[in-house]
Amino acid sequence: MKPTKQILDDILNEVRPLIGQGKVADYIPALACVPNDKLGIAVYTNDGEMITSGDADERFSIQSISKALSLTLAMELYQPEELWQRVGKEPSGQAFNSLIQLEMEQGVPRNPFINAGAIVVADMLFSRFSAPKHRLLEFVRKLSGNEHIIYDRVVANSEMDHSDRNASIAYLMRSFGNFDNEVMPVLKNYFHACALNMSCIDLARTFGYLANKGIQPETNEFIVTPMQSKQINALMATCGLYDGAGEFAYRVGMPGKSGVGGGIIAIVPGEMTIAVWSPELDPSGNSLAGTQALELLSERIGRSIF
Amino acid sequence: MKPTKQILDDILNEVRPLIGQGKVADYIPALACVPNDKLGIAVYTNDGEMITSGDADERFSIQSISKALSLTLAMELYQPEELWQRVGKEPSGQAFNSLIQLEMEQGVPRNPFINAGAIVVADMLFSRFSAPKHRLLEFVRKLSGNEHIIYDRVVANSEMDHSDRNASIAYLMRSFGNFDNEVMPVLKNYFHACALNMSCIDLARTFGYLANKGIQPETNEFIVTPMQSKQINALMATCGLYDGAGEFAYRVGMPGKSGVGGGIIAIVPGEMTIAVWSPELDPSGNSLAGTQALELLSERIGRSIF
Amino acid sequence: MKPTKQILDDILNEVRPLIGQGKVADYIPALACVPNDKLGIAVYTNDGEMITSGDADERFSIQSISKALSLTLAMELYQPEELWQRVGKEPSGQAFNSLIQLEMEQGVPRNPFINAGAIVVADMLFSRFSAPKHRLLEFVRKLSGNEHIIYDRVVANSEMDHSDRNASIAYLMRSFGNFDNEVMPVLKNYFHACALNMSCIDLARTFGYLANKGIQPETNEFIVTPMQSKQINALMATCGLYDGAGEFAYRVGMPGKSGVGGGIIAIVPGEMTIAVWSPELDPSGNSLAGTQALELLSERIGRSIF
Amino acid sequence: MKPTKQILDDILNEVRPLIGQGKVADYIPALACVPNDKLGIAVYTNDGEMITSGDADERFSIQSISKALSLTLAMELYQPEELWQRVGKEPSGQAFNSLIQLEMEQGVPRNPFINAGAIVVADMLFSRFSAPKHRLLEFVRKLSGNEHIIYDRVVANSEMDHSDRNASIAYLMRSFGNFDNEVMPVLKNYFHACALNMSCIDLARTFGYLANKGIQPETNEFIVTPMQSKQINALMATCGLYDGAGEFAYRVGMPGKSGVGGGIIAIVPGEMTIAVWSPELDPSGNSLAGTQALELLSERIGRSIF
Repeated sequence: MKPTKQILDDILNEVRPLIGQGKVADYIPALACVPNDKLGIAVYTNDGEMITSGDADERFSIQSISKALSLTLAMELYQPEELWQRVGKEPSGQAFNSLIQLEMEQGVPRNPFINAGAIVVADMLFSRFSAPKHRLLEFVRKLSGNEHIIYDRVVANSEMDHSDRNASIAYLMRSFGNFDNEVMPVLKNYFHACALNMSCIDLARTFGYLANKGIQPETNEFIVTPMQSKQINALMATCGLYDGAGEFAYRVGMPGKSGVGGGIIAIVPGEMTIAVWSPELDPSGNSLAGTQALELLSERIGRSIF
Repeated sequence: MKPTKQILDDILNEVRPLIGQGKVADYIPALACVPNDKLGIAVYTNDGEMITSGDADERFSIQSISKALSLTLAMELYQPEELWQRVGKEPSGQAFNSLIQLEMEQGVPRNPFINAGAIVVADMLFSRFSAPKHRLLEFVRKLSGNEHIIYDRVVANSEMDHSDRNASIAYLMRSFGNFDNEVMPVLKNYFHACALNMSCIDLARTFGYLANKGIQPETNEFIVTPMQSKQINALMATCGLYDGAGEFAYRVGMPGKSGVGGGIIAIVPGEMTIAVWSPELDPSGNSLAGTQALELLSERIGRSIF
Repeated sequence: MKPTKQILDDILNEVRPLIGQGKVADYIPALACVPNDKLGIAVYTNDGEMITSGDADERFSIQSISKALSLTLAMELYQPEELWQRVGKEPSGQAFNSLIQLEMEQGVPRNPFINAGAIVVADMLFSRFSAPKHRLLEFVRKLSGNEHIIYDRVVANSEMDHSDRNASIAYLMRSFGNFDNEVMPVLKNYFHACALNMSCIDLARTFGYLANKGIQPETNEFIVTPMQSKQINALMATCGLYDGAGEFAYRVGMPGKSGVGGGIIAIVPGEMTIAVWSPELDPSGNSLAGTQALELLSERIGRSIF
Repeated sequence: MKPTKQILDDILNEVRPLIGQGKVADYIPALACVPNDKLGIAVYTNDGEMITSGDADERFSIQSISKALSLTLAMELYQPEELWQRVGKEPSGQAFNSLIQLEMEQGVPRNPFINAGAIVVADMLFSRFSAPKHRLLEFVRKLSGNEHIIYDRVVANSEMDHSDRNASIAYLMRSFGNFDNEVMPVLKNYFHACALNMSCIDLARTFGYLANKGIQPETNEFIVTPMQSKQINALMATCGLYDGAGEFAYRVGMPGKSGVGGGIIAIVPGEMTIAVWSPELDPSGNSLAGTQALELLSERIGRSIF
């Protein structure tokens, strides 16, 4: 069955009662103050149709969803062997910001979607771009077709004020020779990427290339090769939802990437990209109502990669 | 493109030079003596076609591939909440036989495909079946349509003689209250399951239900619900290849389950089941040439879940 | 100042208010039912004087204190290089029954006073003695001069009924080749050693050789060399109080060994042996009031190795 | 037996053949270039006698031995409860610069002698002193009676250039709220303390107070209380030799503190302080010949705390 406005409306109504059972991220004040009852969804099909419901056009902090964008840029800039000797492709089995495995594995992070891995990717972008923040913004504006996307400076600065754990991660990698630049400037760029403010509509359109073999629908712009598109989806499927990737695959059955701002993007390869947003998180740090909405959508439209 | 005999022949020729670069499992003598140059592949489509190449009809020890069969039986016997409170659904991020995470997580294994998880499943089958070994054999013979499938007693006994690590795992779970029966009888059943002798043809046919929404092709027998079939595939995709699940998803892009006997089964949901065999393993314990063959097949026929 | 009956009486009065603030060991029923208000102390000097207060002649389960006796026997039976290649001499920094470090360090326990280490020692005694239980009992009766010391069979059997964790430890070491005999018979001996029933008076006299350069006071019997006596004291000082060895050294300043039955023995080398008993434990598993009594005694009589 | 010049000469001759079997610290160039055949020892008795042999008056980098001095200052400045809520008193059971335990234990280091613990102590001194480097130098000059003691700036700067691992440790503690100041200025002070250049004679005299109940011999200056002196010795006995504290207690039987510059100080409470120096280290990071010299001295003069 094709997704319709009606299906999306129904699903949001069904998951809305979950609001109140999760917990809005509160490690920085700028995130803690987001109203917990926001709820939106956008489906963007490979033939360019955009179907939405709820607060689909309201912007929020995409947080770790940006890690998929940074990875895409790094895959454009670096040869596979350069990239994958510095970061792995395996699920970590540990919390997203843990240092334990990182120390035992000599400073090579398990995958690009845990903090350590995304920070290595940020370091690699920093080495190649003269103005990494500017380049990422340009990239996102192009992908989304929305020139108004900006960084939320309050969020970025707030992250920087609470950066000790990530600084610890970066210095540990540096001590193992897996970090090339000064720590603080790289972290600043990393936090800006996390502080991108985007709506479900922006996100669904931005990640269209992952559902369309690397070509952006509508604009037909080449972003990555079909192989790279498949690889990014594979990495999201095994590592994209923190320590809840297995559960997400089991329930939703789509490659996805979540952020602690409550957003999730999910891909139905060959067909569509979906973005949901609900700020309250489950214990793994993924949007509670958002995950449930994706599970229901997967069932209703009969789409799953499995 | 459809898989053909010619494509399979070509692929085996291409991967054959890898033989000599891996390492046959040698932790028990019965496995160490398997000739390292065996190489076979079988593709079984949902419309009942079987395409093969190389040693596709020669039997080998399926080892951990049996974990997907035991899980299927447990999902038939138990309610989801009964099953999933005793074993998780997340990648472990650690070696398949590690006790570290098991101790930190209070005796609940990460997933049913690491040893600890499969041993819990064996314990659950033991609690419900009066003759678990007999029932599993019956189940496999039915699925494969091959009445001649048997346990390799030499392998099973050899595993039992080298069972200390698995006994340690079982007793640790027992100390946490997550193991109900006597340890040794359960392990005996567990080792017998691992000692099933099957060919690529047997395996491809056996797992047909996972490519066909829970219904066995040809016989049309109901094995599991479409939802359960999807769930098993999801678990294989995130956890089915030991500590190489991410790499396998990245390269092959199919749910799969491997065994240290050198076999791998892989699923293209809605289309086909593939079984490969080459005894030499890579450092993660997955068949070296077998993985490469699946990667090439995925490319040639343009099939991947991503 | 010399220890006197008056000093001991005063100290027991001072520490008695701590009763109610700790927790009697309850992992087996036979220990959980010991009255929590028992309190006793015995000081045995190298010139054969025995000074006591409180319940000093009441027997209790010595539990892990027996590990120092088993180690003494193993040091008599084996060459140092044989013994110390199978068990280390370093503090573990982890819980007494953890498997994590044991797995990471290839089945060689950190020291003879954590469970894994004591089980290796039990395995070594089992290999050399035809009737290890009998020999240990003989040894203790000789050291204490008390022919009435016996094993508490209820405790020993109760431990055996709750032996899963220790069985897991033993099998893990066996999988690394650091365990030579059948697991269950060795554990049975290990649990019997822990189930020795002795009073403070028995214990103080038994361990007299550690304060007297290896020679039992009064009987002048040779037990170990002066060097071995010094070595056992050193091991107790760094590893004898579970994960509270540092705190014990800081507060009490004597080599010691504790048991979850609430007993502690402490050594003032060259002068005296002290045994205390109070069943309630602190969070590290050491007698709460017992430790405090030893701290006060150390201050009053001005004895500490530091 | 009393230590004599002859005994010290004999011991150095006996241990000299070990030179060539260890490894000079090479993580910074300034340490790697120290001649490996230096060998010195100094014994300083409580009645003010100084007995020496070999290169006892040649200065070297004291490195982690400084941690005992910084701890002494912190114990003077802070109440025990203030100090010990920020750093523990237990052996770590892990490498001196590991982050694993530190993360699991919420940023509270195991003891003041592993890097993390010493960095917390440095943070505490930084909070109280306006010029911590100056104050420490003043303190050491007073204790040693040697006005010429200085920091080796080349070593200090070289440490700062290789500070990533320690920065990672500091930021991790900061993320847990156990670090109050800016990371880099504190590390700078920490590295200067490690870069103190002192001879065996300087060290033996400096630590005289730990053998003399807190009073400096000869000058009779009060440094710490008898209780504090005992406590520092206890901490050195259980935690002072990295991951070799148990072995050191077993072989030498004295509280001690080592540094990767090859120096070790050891205390015979009530009698004397000993300092040895030989730059080659054993695998635990302690001076190979230095430890052996202390073991021989302990045997010859019949001194051990056990």
